[in-house]
Amino acid sequence: MGKVILTGDRPTGKLHLGHYVGSLRRRVELQNSGLFDKIFIMIADAQALTDNADNPEKIRQNLIEVALDYLSVGIDPAKSTIFVQTAVPELTELAFYYMNLVSVSRVQRNPTVKTEIKMRGFEGESIPMGFFSYPVSQASDITAFKATTVPVGDDQAPMIELTREIVNRFNHIYGEVLVEPEIMLPDNAACHRLPGTDGKAKMSKSLGNCIYLSDTPKEVKKKINSMYTDPLHLTIDSPGHLEGNCPFIYLDAFSRPDHFAKYLPEYASLNELKEHYTRGGIGDGTVKKLLYNVIEEELSPIRERRKMWEKDIPGVYEILRKGSEAARETAAQTLEEVRAAMKINYFTDKALIEKQAKAFGK
Amino acid sequence: MGKVILTGDRPTGKLHLGHYVGSLRRRVELQNSGLFDKIFIMIADAQALTDNADNPEKIRQNLIEVALDYLSVGIDPAKSTIFVQTAVPELTELAFYYMNLVSVSRVQRNPTVKTEIKMRGFEGESIPMGFFSYPVSQASDITAFKATTVPVGDDQAPMIELTREIVNRFNHIYGEVLVEPEIMLPDNAACHRLPGTDGKAKMSKSLGNCIYLSDTPKEVKKKINSMYTDPLHLTIDSPGHLEGNCPFIYLDAFSRPDHFAKYLPEYASLNELKEHYTRGGIGDGTVKKLLYNVIEEELSPIRERRKMWEKDIPGVYEILRKGSEAARETAAQTLEEVRAAMKINYFTDKALIEKQAKAFGK
Repeated sequence: MGKVILTGDRPTGKLHLGHYVGSLRRRVELQNSGLFDKIFIMIADAQALTDNADNPEKIRQNLIEVALDYLSVGIDPAKSTIFVQTAVPELTELAFYYMNLVSVSRVQRNPTVKTEIKMRGFEGESIPMGFFSYPVSQASDITAFKATTVPVGDDQAPMIELTREIVNRFNHIYGEVLVEPEIMLPDNAACHRLPGTDGKAKMSKSLGNCIYLSDTPKEVKKKINSMYTDPLHLTIDSPGHLEGNCPFIYLDAFSRPDHFAKYLPEYASLNELKEHYTRGGIGDGTVKKLLYNVIEEELSPIRERRKMWEKDIPGVYEILRKGSEAARETAAQTLEEVRAAMKINYFTDKALIEKQAKAFGK
Repeated sequence: MGKVILTGDRPTGKLHLGHYVGSLRRRVELQNSGLFDKIFIMIADAQALTDNADNPEKIRQNLIEVALDYLSVGIDPAKSTIFVQTAVPELTELAFYYMNLVSVSRVQRNPTVKTEIKMRGFEGESIPMGFFSYPVSQASDITAFKATTVPVGDDQAPMIELTREIVNRFNHIYGEVLVEPEIMLPDNAACHRLPGTDGKAKMSKSLGNCIYLSDTPKEVKKKINSMYTDPLHLTIDSPGHLEGNCPFIYLDAFSRPDHFAKYLPEYASLNELKEHYTRGGIGDGTVKKLLYNVIEEELSPIRERRKMWEKDIPGVYEILRKGSEAARETAAQTLEEVRAAMKINYFTDKALIEKQAKAFGK
């Protein structure tokens, strides 16, 4: 059995640098590593609808944005299968059967579910059933493709654990069909979560603190210039602090030694720059300018590819359609095995019909 | 718009006189009334699995039993579409979307759900997600066929109410697609629930107090002879009581005046028999013998038809397969409308692609 990745995003907004650092960049590396037989990348519109049921237009608009972002960062449809969740209805059927294998309280106790419910400000009364059961839906997304590997942050560990439980329970009751997935945590802790430009823990559309992959150079410059740094660093000469200092955190995630030779040759490395900043004598403007150059080096090819794809929206939809068709084939194959194991394949199981005919014939 | 019925049973056991009196007999009447454009009768195997996930063999065995029972009582595949729930996967997709429109607490507060959970002895910890969400699944079963009419007992009223809520919410958010169903309560309160042969409120397989439609005359006789009557009616001459007296309750449900002329001409009607029994002077044996004759008149043609169908199990499966195919066509049509209303029909909506292409082209 080969190695298979399942990953994806909810199309609730354009993708930003937080997504890039947290998952997209790595996804492209994994895609090009040659270590995986199949990579499925899902635009999770069904999941996005679980807490946006009254705003389908938002999901619809962002579906194409996310697809453009994928293609722009270097997801290659020849190597990775990009698909749309609702275009693979087999996933809902699997989820339906898996729901019998998980108790309500098991989901209620899931720490990720608890956090997500809190984040969305759902009160006890208002949690939609669909949102509440999305961990089961995720189990279906993962297992439909017999994914061996799910690259996510450690905050998602309880979700993967629940998928493993469902797999074990299914295989125990109905026979070995499903594959137990492994979580693949980020290599570099520093890279796995980028704060917002305002210094808040996470980039979030609603907080307006994101740098989007599709931002213009002007927008990027403006956002970097207004970034949260060190409120105690009042003059160039006063000592600066690195903790929570966004430009430095972003440089941790993006800068390489060669960037210094190119954009700030006074320093050999990020460490040297940090040292000088800490003891005083360097202004935030210098750091931000470097960061702008570093980020632009990353974003400008992405932006170029995006421009190209934006000219061919029908072509992007065609990629999604073809990807969804391929994904559907794989999921349908798994579903067929699932149905046979569950013995609900009444009409295709000739042996059953014969056996029962004999029993009634007695 | 024509009138459409959706009804069905969980294949967890053979059907008994309780089902017959409570729903099957009436279903045949409705089928033959000519008042309905379409009648869909669902063998709810998916729903049965929600609390029998670890026993798929039981569901599988009872699926054919229920199908045989249907055909035996006079459900006519030329007039009614008999189908298998899991053979219409569109139902799971609809349920998936409807789950976004109902809150967890709304389901928790549903009195029918509360009762069913209690009946099954699920403790707080052990309610399967699938069982918990079956009201949403039922809404999907009903609406997929745009059923106008759901013939059920009044204990199911809160379920139909939830379906109506989902329909209203869906139509309000996404546009008028779904049809609000009406509950159709039994005409005759006396007929809608038959006690078990032991006098307990309901026939139940686990209590062993059922007379099955497929019982032999010998089994029926034995069960009637051991029926719970009136423990105070110790001798023939002592006054009898009718309350909770099973043979009389069964006679209420089954006997007609012509039965008396035929089997017990000493009495013109059930009322006369009741009067005599109440004042004393008639034994339980006489009543039971009458009941046996009355029930046999009902059961023997059912039994004959069953024997015929038992000789053609492949033919029964073929009826289910064809019915499921027809049901699937209807459900797929509704699903297509649902998907278009929800704007998740990305690949078939040419206008969307053009509009977005223009927007990005600017």
